[in-house]
Amino acid sequence: MENLLCTGCRREVDGGLWQARCPECGEPLEVGPPRGGSVLDGAPLLVRFANFLPRRALGLEGPAAPVLSLGEGNTPLLHLETIGERIGLPRLFVKVEGTNPTGSFKDRGSVAGVQRARALGFRAVGTVSTGNMASSMAAYGARAGMRAVVLVSASIPRAKLAPIAAYNPLLIGVEGDYGRLYHLSLELGPKLGIAFVNSDDPYRVEGQKTLALELWQQLRRQLPDAVVVPVSSGGHMAALLKGFKELHALGYTERVPRLIGVQAAGCAPIATAYQQGADTPAAWGEPRTIAKAIANPSPPSGRRLLQAAKNGAPLHFVTVTDEEIMAAYWRLAHEAGVFAQPDAAAPVAAAQKLAASGLLRPDETVVAILTGHGTKDLTPLESNAPVSLRTCTLDELPRVLERAL
Amino acid sequence: MENLLCTGCRREVDGGLWQARCPECGEPLEVGPPRGGSVLDGAPLLVRFANFLPRRALGLEGPAAPVLSLGEGNTPLLHLETIGERIGLPRLFVKVEGTNPTGSFKDRGSVAGVQRARALGFRAVGTVSTGNMASSMAAYGARAGMRAVVLVSASIPRAKLAPIAAYNPLLIGVEGDYGRLYHLSLELGPKLGIAFVNSDDPYRVEGQKTLALELWQQLRRQLPDAVVVPVSSGGHMAALLKGFKELHALGYTERVPRLIGVQAAGCAPIATAYQQGADTPAAWGEPRTIAKAIANPSPPSGRRLLQAAKNGAPLHFVTVTDEEIMAAYWRLAHEAGVFAQPDAAAPVAAAQKLAASGLLRPDETVVAILTGHGTKDLTPLESNAPVSLRTCTLDELPRVLERAL
Repeated sequence: MENLLCTGCRREVDGGLWQARCPECGEPLEVGPPRGGSVLDGAPLLVRFANFLPRRALGLEGPAAPVLSLGEGNTPLLHLETIGERIGLPRLFVKVEGTNPTGSFKDRGSVAGVQRARALGFRAVGTVSTGNMASSMAAYGARAGMRAVVLVSASIPRAKLAPIAAYNPLLIGVEGDYGRLYHLSLELGPKLGIAFVNSDDPYRVEGQKTLALELWQQLRRQLPDAVVVPVSSGGHMAALLKGFKELHALGYTERVPRLIGVQAAGCAPIATAYQQGADTPAAWGEPRTIAKAIANPSPPSGRRLLQAAKNGAPLHFVTVTDEEIMAAYWRLAHEAGVFAQPDAAAPVAAAQKLAASGLLRPDETVVAILTGHGTKDLTPLESNAPVSLRTCTLDELPRVLERAL
Repeated sequence: MENLLCTGCRREVDGGLWQARCPECGEPLEVGPPRGGSVLDGAPLLVRFANFLPRRALGLEGPAAPVLSLGEGNTPLLHLETIGERIGLPRLFVKVEGTNPTGSFKDRGSVAGVQRARALGFRAVGTVSTGNMASSMAAYGARAGMRAVVLVSASIPRAKLAPIAAYNPLLIGVEGDYGRLYHLSLELGPKLGIAFVNSDDPYRVEGQKTLALELWQQLRRQLPDAVVVPVSSGGHMAALLKGFKELHALGYTERVPRLIGVQAAGCAPIATAYQQGADTPAAWGEPRTIAKAIANPSPPSGRRLLQAAKNGAPLHFVTVTDEEIMAAYWRLAHEAGVFAQPDAAAPVAAAQKLAASGLLRPDETVVAILTGHGTKDLTPLESNAPVSLRTCTLDELPRVLERAL
């Protein structure tokens, strides 16, 4: 079995066991470099990019290997001409990850993590999450015929449970510190036979990195100049960096695009540390933002990203306010017909800000990653702009329409 | 400009005007046969299947023609081995239309209808709908830079408005008969400059028929033995029939698969007429079903389908009860990780019933069309099974997990 590498101390760690963090320094582990090769169009995600993934570890070798899939990936890359012109980035694209099977980018990582757990003989998979990752893991657990364990904070609003509970996972609300729960899950998992596929699990990261590969493929083997992505735990951004670096190392691309991580001003431990030149995420209290899905005050992959930036990786971090996020949220839906979660709208808000300050230039190809679908969280819509319905009779309709248009 | 044909009296009608029904007999109009040719993978839906669509009418000719897209189509076709084995259909597939940009199959039709309206110079598009079609049209209107007019029943629950209102359409609740509203919209549209792309609009049907073409493509140019599809207005089923018939007429396939239309027992005007051997949909009162999206008591394309069946098209109609629908709804989510709307689960319920009665055989390849995503209507989930969350402290977690697994 291929070994894993520590992203902190670069130590080699036994890849035959289920572990996500280095037993020595505690930093996330990662899979070694891929061989590369062709992309197999029309196949499930794990087969499409098999030449860029750890095939053996994922149990993908041999023609009869069972391949997990709910149809993840292959999401739209849309050129937003109108919004792009308005904010000074005529070559603005959005990658609509909300069209994944459970409505978010998490499906790419879940399919890889659950496939790996099944290959290792686990009968249960788990995760610590309150939102997108929870429903994603519950769905892939069900698809794989495995028990799914979802640990959430006991204070989670009941309304957020429905799209998770739909898949019938073992759903437990835990009282106490969320950061400690994350580490406790990794400790308990191997003992209880539950493969916890959390945000920075090495195989989740392998799945998430397919987004970088897919962008390169959709842009006809060209790279964008910059990719703007929401940052919560940091695992997604680390995965994109890994994907782009591997494409470069294999000689497919001449460079790695700039990656711009976006945090909400009300929960910005990584962006704050970056601005202060610190190595580890800033200590952060209670998050205060409408973008709940990117409100992790103790991001497990924060250190890894900050160190990569120090070591010369083209990473940048910015913050956006809730006002800026909501302006982008409405703009996307009203002017482009794209309905994304508030956190998913954050990169468009950030792109606008960076265009205004000259850090993104009008001739650059910029891709904003819209991580989740708007229908997954209707709260901002319902609370910020209660829907008013004007009514009329059939007879009045012609006049009402004439006046309104 | 290519003319349209009446699906009733087969009269030719001027295709340069915006009209959806025959001025003589009132039946829906349709686009004539396509030329056929290759499918262009990786392109927007209208370009992928351009050789099977009315290119000129859609303004798709010339390399610089603007092509509307939100990334619709290319939805997953999943083989459900486990559920299939259990219900006696080992070759059961589901087509997951809920991964379309606005979460339903309607996006295929909306993109074609709005593209056509834009090509004709309209500045406003409209629809009469309370659910999937409304949010779809609002989104594509926004994407095209056009005003979208959505007419709903004045009694619509406010909770259903949020995913429509997100795209900022002109949203009007109309008091009075829903069937009359449908016809009034078609009458008012041309006068007021609003292109109403309702369920049986000829160009919507062209877009919806791409589902048949895509199935054929995904099955490697083979046909399934049967396709099971929910039926409300009947426009979708008519579109599938048109697509499969055209493939056959062009010589690409040796037959047309059986198409099985599913209605809820609480609103089954077409299935009832079919069983009675009648030509027109049965009169129906207030619909009573949890499957709201297939509860049209006066289906505009009902006559067209019933007559096609009489003329030898391989169409069949069945009903399923709400209990059967909900059993399939839970089974899909719990056993396959696929979360679909109740109406979208109806074809799986029907497939099970038809397998039990021998009308679908175990050696047959059966595709159930899951028309919309479960997150679009959380009511059944919230009302039928209020989510209970068991809670514990961090210290109690190991014991709680051990006992539960």
